[in-house]
Amino acid sequence: MAQPVRVLVWGENRHEQTEDHVRAIYPDGMHEAVAAGIRENLGDGCTVRTATLDDPEHGLTEEVLRETDVLTWWGHQAHDEVADAVVERVHEHVLSGMGLVVLHSGHWSKLFQRLMGTSCRLRWRNEHDRELVWTVDPTHPIAAGVPHPLVIDEDEMYGEFFDIPAPDELVFISSFSGGEVFRSGCTFKRGHGRIFYFRPGDQDYPTYHHPGVRKVIANGVAWARSDRQERSYPEIRRYATGELVAEP
Amino acid sequence: MAQPVRVLVWGENRHEQTEDHVRAIYPDGMHEAVAAGIRENLGDGCTVRTATLDDPEHGLTEEVLRETDVLTWWGHQAHDEVADAVVERVHEHVLSGMGLVVLHSGHWSKLFQRLMGTSCRLRWRNEHDRELVWTVDPTHPIAAGVPHPLVIDEDEMYGEFFDIPAPDELVFISSFSGGEVFRSGCTFKRGHGRIFYFRPGDQDYPTYHHPGVRKVIANGVAWARSDRQERSYPEIRRYATGELVAEP
Amino acid sequence: MAQPVRVLVWGENRHEQTEDHVRAIYPDGMHEAVAAGIRENLGDGCTVRTATLDDPEHGLTEEVLRETDVLTWWGHQAHDEVADAVVERVHEHVLSGMGLVVLHSGHWSKLFQRLMGTSCRLRWRNEHDRELVWTVDPTHPIAAGVPHPLVIDEDEMYGEFFDIPAPDELVFISSFSGGEVFRSGCTFKRGHGRIFYFRPGDQDYPTYHHPGVRKVIANGVAWARSDRQERSYPEIRRYATGELVAEP
Amino acid sequence: MAQPVRVLVWGENRHEQTEDHVRAIYPDGMHEAVAAGIRENLGDGCTVRTATLDDPEHGLTEEVLRETDVLTWWGHQAHDEVADAVVERVHEHVLSGMGLVVLHSGHWSKLFQRLMGTSCRLRWRNEHDRELVWTVDPTHPIAAGVPHPLVIDEDEMYGEFFDIPAPDELVFISSFSGGEVFRSGCTFKRGHGRIFYFRPGDQDYPTYHHPGVRKVIANGVAWARSDRQERSYPEIRRYATGELVAEP
Repeated sequence: MAQPVRVLVWGENRHEQTEDHVRAIYPDGMHEAVAAGIRENLGDGCTVRTATLDDPEHGLTEEVLRETDVLTWWGHQAHDEVADAVVERVHEHVLSGMGLVVLHSGHWSKLFQRLMGTSCRLRWRNEHDRELVWTVDPTHPIAAGVPHPLVIDEDEMYGEFFDIPAPDELVFISSFSGGEVFRSGCTFKRGHGRIFYFRPGDQDYPTYHHPGVRKVIANGVAWARSDRQERSYPEIRRYATGELVAEP
Repeated sequence: MAQPVRVLVWGENRHEQTEDHVRAIYPDGMHEAVAAGIRENLGDGCTVRTATLDDPEHGLTEEVLRETDVLTWWGHQAHDEVADAVVERVHEHVLSGMGLVVLHSGHWSKLFQRLMGTSCRLRWRNEHDRELVWTVDPTHPIAAGVPHPLVIDEDEMYGEFFDIPAPDELVFISSFSGGEVFRSGCTFKRGHGRIFYFRPGDQDYPTYHHPGVRKVIANGVAWARSDRQERSYPEIRRYATGELVAEP
Repeated sequence: MAQPVRVLVWGENRHEQTEDHVRAIYPDGMHEAVAAGIRENLGDGCTVRTATLDDPEHGLTEEVLRETDVLTWWGHQAHDEVADAVVERVHEHVLSGMGLVVLHSGHWSKLFQRLMGTSCRLRWRNEHDRELVWTVDPTHPIAAGVPHPLVIDEDEMYGEFFDIPAPDELVFISSFSGGEVFRSGCTFKRGHGRIFYFRPGDQDYPTYHHPGVRKVIANGVAWARSDRQERSYPEIRRYATGELVAEP
Repeated sequence: MAQPVRVLVWGENRHEQTEDHVRAIYPDGMHEAVAAGIRENLGDGCTVRTATLDDPEHGLTEEVLRETDVLTWWGHQAHDEVADAVVERVHEHVLSGMGLVVLHSGHWSKLFQRLMGTSCRLRWRNEHDRELVWTVDPTHPIAAGVPHPLVIDEDEMYGEFFDIPAPDELVFISSFSGGEVFRSGCTFKRGHGRIFYFRPGDQDYPTYHHPGVRKVIANGVAWARSDRQERSYPEIRRYATGELVAEP
């Protein structure tokens, strides 16, 4: 029987401190809503902790990361406050095999830009658009049990062109009331790590209470956990002729 | 200077015979509108001929195909009347290097299904939806000079799940008034041939008179022409040890 | 706890009847060696049956397929004897969600060609080349626990150009003593089904007794099993405006 | 008639200064050999300049980059001496539409790592391996006119696992005398830019005098030139409801 996946839900946790209407939606912080959704879906198959920007080292110490199978990331107004050294550390863990689920405005984080190598820019509008999330890869484990379409009554709009590398797998495409479209569920492999980007979730809306959104995030977490037994950074090494496997 | 691309525009040409409102939109047949759009954009860079279902061998003889760099395909109500032997012949030419541009309801042709290996099924509705065609691969030559978005005031709706292999390149995504989305511009390589599928173009609408749609089709034709000098079917052959290049 | 994956190992089982040296390597038939390798790796996580060409309907009745989560396929000298109706039936099950693992010379089967849409041609040589199978997608579940490289002392050579669609995921690349290379571990999604092609395994060599090869095949079987609860052929259906989910 | 592609060949140009045997192979520097190969193949279709590490700002000023359609990059022992500000500037130009061809040990440059988001690590050995470069995407323009296989009598070995994102297109795979394999011709799109990585070319060997290698590099340059008319960084912008195209 597989060990439970050890999840760390990271939240910026600023809007919840400074804006009443956000705190009204997420009284315990957005990160707790995300964490609850994962627990609700994965049950005994997971152990979930949370960390936030204002924790020491943003709660992302070497020790914590070493004990994390999959990290989820939500940030928005304070991307610049995330220390470069922490970004490097997390980046190294992803390439070494830690799974990563990036949510919504996390597209604009230092970490996601570092992993993508692109600008991660897009068009947007925060005007209560209805979002429809359509599955275009129905055999993908992240799509299992997800309604087609997933209907989100209100959320911020993100539209193309979204400047990311072509995803390894495109799982979901969203449309919005205004007619825009967005590649809203994308997988990427980088180094030994798996990355899932999922679009929904502006702080002004109760998106992370939506059962379908929670299902997708939990599926993404389960998918992003590595099958490799050990965590190791990709190797650069000279091999002698005939030395196929590294000799001591 | 490159030789002009030799294009053959194939049209089923049945709706135009039997339905007044279609003939009113396309008095010379839909194939002539497609052909005109290619000539308009590629000018001296192309020579364009047309052929239709009711021509002998559907106008797709070995001799004609041998002189064709890129074939475009539109069919709808009479897919079953296309002879299997002709489908095999065209399929063989595509794998040997002939380019192919499949339009709209051509998704349901024997030829496209044969090339994709899938059912090519989808959801649809013919109710004058507005279609917005968004570019998600702005560096692709097929997207060059195409408005973002391309606005089509009225057309049939096609929605996901569209049962095709994940395209090699996803160039365009459409949304419709009803909120549906569709991977509407897709490239595929098969054998030595290049294939471009482009969604817009139901017979009930003047879609092939739209300058932006014509631009895309012409770009698709230019892209689909092979860079290989000769047309040849992929090889199966025994090579001796040390025989890297085939010896007579 | 997930149900055991129900595997059907299909073997042509002709060489074993007519060639002493093949029977010496595979006294119970190649299919039994493949089946044993899957059982050895998946244990209680699988139930494995076998079927062969000479069974009625090749052992691939509607009833059997309905009870099969993943089918593995090895054939070589008698591809033409597989009935077209059976190929259609299996193809339909794959698009409906049955997993498929195609082994070695199965690349030339009607079924694989039907699913790929291409010629599936390649270069080859049966001269006891050493094969090295290198992992290029180390996070893929099919690569989990597989040596890097996997060393096969002797097998038939397959070389590029292999006329297949660009795989969704390229997991393994092989090299051979003669210097040829081959995309030897490839995944494809078609319809609701997952397909894994794995190259090693000519009948003249004991490849399917190799623990590493068995590990890969078992991993492929586990990966190819669908996460979808029901088996269903992709849908073509008209949806009214506002009808997002199909109404009765 | 298309304007000639404006190429800038960038070379580190250090080995040539300090090692006699490298200078003997490349008396004018490796960059001049690369430049000569491009001119030889593209003729009037290109204008080629060169720049090196020791030029002011490494020869990569804003003004120079603005006049460059495609940049080629070779570096090896002095990656760290490339100024971060210059890397940022070049990165910005690539995302804005400048083409980039990265050669051999350029895989380890700050620029390539920045664009890939991964470690770009690999296995290697400098022991005069024979390299065979096999085409696996024969319809790709970069493969046009390239021998299959391309035989390089001696070069450094690079082997998998090569830690890069799965390429958008895999054009070439190499094998080496020692049996290793490598994804040696890869395309990537990032932002509005096209990137081609091509493996061959250690400074200890006359690889850039090889006609087949020169042909590939020239094809790569031609392919990497953007079809977009203007150079522009991807946009992040709010669009009002109904504002499909940006209004002033």
